[in-house]
Amino acid sequence: MIKHITIVLSILLSLAFAKAVTAQYTEVELPLEHIEPRFWWSGMEHNEVEVMFHGPNIAKFDEVRSDLTILNVRKTDNPNYLFVTFDMSIEPNRYNINLCTEDCNEGDTIAIVYDLLERQQNSKERKGFDSSDAIYLIMPDRFANGDPSNDTVEGLAEKANRDFKGGRHGGDIQGIIDHLDYIDDLGATAIWSTPLLEDNDARYSYHTYAQSDLYKIDPRYGTNEDYKRLGDELHKRDMKLIMDYVTNHWGATHWMMQDLPTKTWIHQFDDNEGKDFPVAGYANSSYRQTTQMDPNVSKRDAIYAEKGWFVSTMPDINQSEPLALNYLIQNTIWWIEYAGLDGLRVDTYSYNEKEGIAKWTKAIMDEYPNFNIVGETWLHDQAQIAYWQKDSKIAAIQDYNTHLPSVMDFTLHDAIMVAFNENEQGWDKGMSKVYENFVNDFLYPDIDNILVFAGNHDTNRINGNGLYNGDLAKYKLAMTLVLTTRGIPQIYYGDEIGMGGNRDTDGDGDIRRDFPGGWNGDVVNAFDKPSKEQKAYQDFTKKLLNYRRNKEVIHNGKLLQYVPENNCYVYFRYAHEELRSTGQVGLALHESRVMIIINNNTEQVTLDLNKFAEGIDGRKKGQDILTNELFDLTKNIKVKGKTSLVIDLDHRGSGPRWF
Amino acid sequence: MIKHITIVLSILLSLAFAKAVTAQYTEVELPLEHIEPRFWWSGMEHNEVEVMFHGPNIAKFDEVRSDLTILNVRKTDNPNYLFVTFDMSIEPNRYNINLCTEDCNEGDTIAIVYDLLERQQNSKERKGFDSSDAIYLIMPDRFANGDPSNDTVEGLAEKANRDFKGGRHGGDIQGIIDHLDYIDDLGATAIWSTPLLEDNDARYSYHTYAQSDLYKIDPRYGTNEDYKRLGDELHKRDMKLIMDYVTNHWGATHWMMQDLPTKTWIHQFDDNEGKDFPVAGYANSSYRQTTQMDPNVSKRDAIYAEKGWFVSTMPDINQSEPLALNYLIQNTIWWIEYAGLDGLRVDTYSYNEKEGIAKWTKAIMDEYPNFNIVGETWLHDQAQIAYWQKDSKIAAIQDYNTHLPSVMDFTLHDAIMVAFNENEQGWDKGMSKVYENFVNDFLYPDIDNILVFAGNHDTNRINGNGLYNGDLAKYKLAMTLVLTTRGIPQIYYGDEIGMGGNRDTDGDGDIRRDFPGGWNGDVVNAFDKPSKEQKAYQDFTKKLLNYRRNKEVIHNGKLLQYVPENNCYVYFRYAHEELRSTGQVGLALHESRVMIIINNNTEQVTLDLNKFAEGIDGRKKGQDILTNELFDLTKNIKVKGKTSLVIDLDHRGSGPRWF
Repeated sequence: MIKHITIVLSILLSLAFAKAVTAQYTEVELPLEHIEPRFWWSGMEHNEVEVMFHGPNIAKFDEVRSDLTILNVRKTDNPNYLFVTFDMSIEPNRYNINLCTEDCNEGDTIAIVYDLLERQQNSKERKGFDSSDAIYLIMPDRFANGDPSNDTVEGLAEKANRDFKGGRHGGDIQGIIDHLDYIDDLGATAIWSTPLLEDNDARYSYHTYAQSDLYKIDPRYGTNEDYKRLGDELHKRDMKLIMDYVTNHWGATHWMMQDLPTKTWIHQFDDNEGKDFPVAGYANSSYRQTTQMDPNVSKRDAIYAEKGWFVSTMPDINQSEPLALNYLIQNTIWWIEYAGLDGLRVDTYSYNEKEGIAKWTKAIMDEYPNFNIVGETWLHDQAQIAYWQKDSKIAAIQDYNTHLPSVMDFTLHDAIMVAFNENEQGWDKGMSKVYENFVNDFLYPDIDNILVFAGNHDTNRINGNGLYNGDLAKYKLAMTLVLTTRGIPQIYYGDEIGMGGNRDTDGDGDIRRDFPGGWNGDVVNAFDKPSKEQKAYQDFTKKLLNYRRNKEVIHNGKLLQYVPENNCYVYFRYAHEELRSTGQVGLALHESRVMIIINNNTEQVTLDLNKFAEGIDGRKKGQDILTNELFDLTKNIKVKGKTSLVIDLDHRGSGPRWF
Repeated sequence: MIKHITIVLSILLSLAFAKAVTAQYTEVELPLEHIEPRFWWSGMEHNEVEVMFHGPNIAKFDEVRSDLTILNVRKTDNPNYLFVTFDMSIEPNRYNINLCTEDCNEGDTIAIVYDLLERQQNSKERKGFDSSDAIYLIMPDRFANGDPSNDTVEGLAEKANRDFKGGRHGGDIQGIIDHLDYIDDLGATAIWSTPLLEDNDARYSYHTYAQSDLYKIDPRYGTNEDYKRLGDELHKRDMKLIMDYVTNHWGATHWMMQDLPTKTWIHQFDDNEGKDFPVAGYANSSYRQTTQMDPNVSKRDAIYAEKGWFVSTMPDINQSEPLALNYLIQNTIWWIEYAGLDGLRVDTYSYNEKEGIAKWTKAIMDEYPNFNIVGETWLHDQAQIAYWQKDSKIAAIQDYNTHLPSVMDFTLHDAIMVAFNENEQGWDKGMSKVYENFVNDFLYPDIDNILVFAGNHDTNRINGNGLYNGDLAKYKLAMTLVLTTRGIPQIYYGDEIGMGGNRDTDGDGDIRRDFPGGWNGDVVNAFDKPSKEQKAYQDFTKKLLNYRRNKEVIHNGKLLQYVPENNCYVYFRYAHEELRSTGQVGLALHESRVMIIINNNTEQVTLDLNKFAEGIDGRKKGQDILTNELFDLTKNIKVKGKTSLVIDLDHRGSGPRWF
């Protein structure tokens, strides 16, 4: 059909190859609508790169000539696709690829230049986020509108409408960049933003989990270059960028969903064939993630939970299809390499195909051995959460290993959601519930690499009327816990100014309110001029986060906890000889120690410190870093109702050592 | 001090040694007050037997002569004890042991005859209770008073008082024996009675967990011979006897507590020294069993949980003391061998010293490799319960192995306690809660060897107003579950006649009411002439238990479960090729199948059976064994509200096969 079209793609090269190569998209003409990935890097582990060519009847151009070694040419049932695998284990350079119909005569040839770029130094060895970090979670549409000109973009269905809770409000990457100093000052060291890739849903696209192009930042947030710039700006501040990656599903408006490369690219069900859904083959997930490990599961339930779609607008990717799985792997690596990522958060991790997601995870970690990936593991049982962490002994019972370095402590979140409203301790109420969460720490293969949080974009706001209803004291107790226990703390934008919201009564949009001050004309600017109430939240958060930032024993120290009494929970973080780190100035790290007291009782409690001798370890003095109050540890301590203390037991400043 | 006393113990021998030897206690005279164990058996694994001699200044008699080989003579700080280890790996016979002060002149000698008995045939190979059994749990003081003459016994503090809920009511072993046919007819195949060894507490001794003599049945229940007779009577009926054994603690009135062999025999605390407790050294347990696995535990909490006493009247045995541990091991083996036990239930298993209890358990299982022991593992997390089962992969994380074959499914009990009052299904409510219990089955190394129950002597009565308040329909749903799911079902005496009781409002005594008809003069005799209401409970229980008794696929088959919908839970038990058993008459066992439907909705539900094709496996017909109704499995099934069906899918009787 198409015979005599020759296309030359112009690529902008900003630097000579000898130094470094950066590349950029250009629009391609028919019949070639997509080349993915459009460029790659030299020196990658993943160096057999399967390039997808897409365009009307492109499969006819199956004579491939290149100065890259061609390893495989694959066609599918859909003539609009051609997959060609190249050996890219060679020097950075610009290479030629010709796709032809016959003998590669000029008239039959699509000529493509393909760039193999030089990697950033130490790209492979990049260190992912870890427990020395504190992650600030941002929903970009709702954080700050740095560029009002991109609020509505031609070609994308949903227009800005700040009056609609479920609409697009205009926040963007520039808005985040504009407030990095704020986040840095607050004491967070890493940003996880919810997805930024294009989502062309007609409504509710602001959450951006229904992605319509996996190689392109949504223009309403900015450009790929803007995202890369966000990474650069973070790195300048010694901060980290975590991308929210979605392996489980894509948006129904993704161009590939309109023209599936193979029928097997997504999970399809016969049930709803012919019905009026955005993409045929839809059946909903049962959301019963526990079917993934239930030894008594029926095949039917297993299929509907795992292969069912999250919602009808999000076709479920079939990771058993090697083409699809490899597409995901390459796309992920591409973004890490391109944007200089420091980590991934993976959406709905436990909904993925078990074997497929393990292969994906291993491929990423093989490429970046020191990287970090945290999976969303929204389960209510520690064994079930620990199941998903790399080298889990629980998963090993079923001969399974995800290779996923980090999981989320949803059971702690379960406890946090209720405990601070429980003024009286019960066997499993109040601080007992919190305490009991930590007894199962041994189930996790790497307990320090576990995300701890008091809320995220899918849960009730901790300060909302669904939870603690703006009670600052309860917020302080919760954040003391999150920011001083083991693991990697994550805080949700706005919590630090007491932002409310109730998902149960007012829906998702209500827990994703605009950050006040993020929009021109906002009456209150909580970034710069918080209200008195906002400031009280902010000051507390800032103090604790900045203390944590430099307190290695809270990053890597061991946890020692005591059975709570009178709804008062006492624990210690302490360093131990094995600790890799070299320690703080003037203090051998193995001697470092912090005592945390969370009095969740409304009444003052008096603590007999003799009971905590093992934790206090002979220290005579300590200082609450929240109030700077000094404590004589040879005496009892009185702790006011609904109050926490973070007592640093290390010697600081001049004068005699405290111990 | 004591020089010229010679004691000869007369032993009753009922049979010649060549055949079999049985032995019996006789009272010993001063200075020898106790010899434990008083006899042993030839051909045991445990053949280095440490005999404890107790009497005033007995340690002076440390010249031991015997025709048994003496392996060790050990004295402690307490001169009233002498421990002598003999090699008993020799022929059954009567042997002589002389304890002397000097050269074993007659005047200085205590002459003892010691019997080494012949074992019952196949004693070592005895098969313990398993999932083919249904266990009937009896509290003997409250079941039936077979011998009113022993209700009050001289020398034991507490007298019978049936008017006091917490008092002794007079039930005894003879009462149990008298009603074995009732239990057999009901369809139970094994009895677990709460402890029967002497408990000389002044009050509340009826529960009998504060034992005062480990080698003697409490005379208010009968004699050692009566207990042995109970075993014999059960075995005649092809039923089994399970002893409730307490390793964790003894009663404060135990004679040894008044005269400790070593200070280290029990766990002692300084805290309460000098205070007015029955035995010095008491501090209470915190009951936080999770300290046993918490990697963050403080030493203090670990000590108080595990070494603290269950109550002040129950000194906590120190299993790190080899003498004490070995005493427990020998005593246990003695009872298994003496009474012909088919299993043990171990009280407060998870409160024991971890290393000690593992050694104890291994010793028993080494002696009887096919035996069964179920530990009380009252925890609310499956990983934590699975931790205590033999070869647990969870416990292996901490390099621990209990060697305990069976544990208790307390999380299922947690679900049963609420689910049938939840008429509407929620994400984790109603049948979802039940369903979710089984997804974690993979955490258990041996899921068939797990005790399932709707209540025991420590929990609210299922038919009481604390739970299902005499709603027969809910009882039926719960018992359908307990008697058809995987594991070993245990039912609590009286539940089968709808007996009530509320522990929360009326205390322990209320859930341990007298079985009506167990006492002369009882107005209602639920054994023989149950009321109409009692009979409705009884008939249902009987029908289901007797069906289960012969349905191998329910004993050993696999479980296949479906995510509940409309609060209706459907599961199957099905056999598989690997099943050891030979199968039922006329039906290869690997084809056997049962479909269970528990409709916990108050409304009728209609089930589209297509959904359950995997479970139905092509069967066309089935019969509900509760109503005998036949079902056409090619059509939908309607199930009335709050109703269960147990649909046998196997062909029975003449006529064409059902599948």
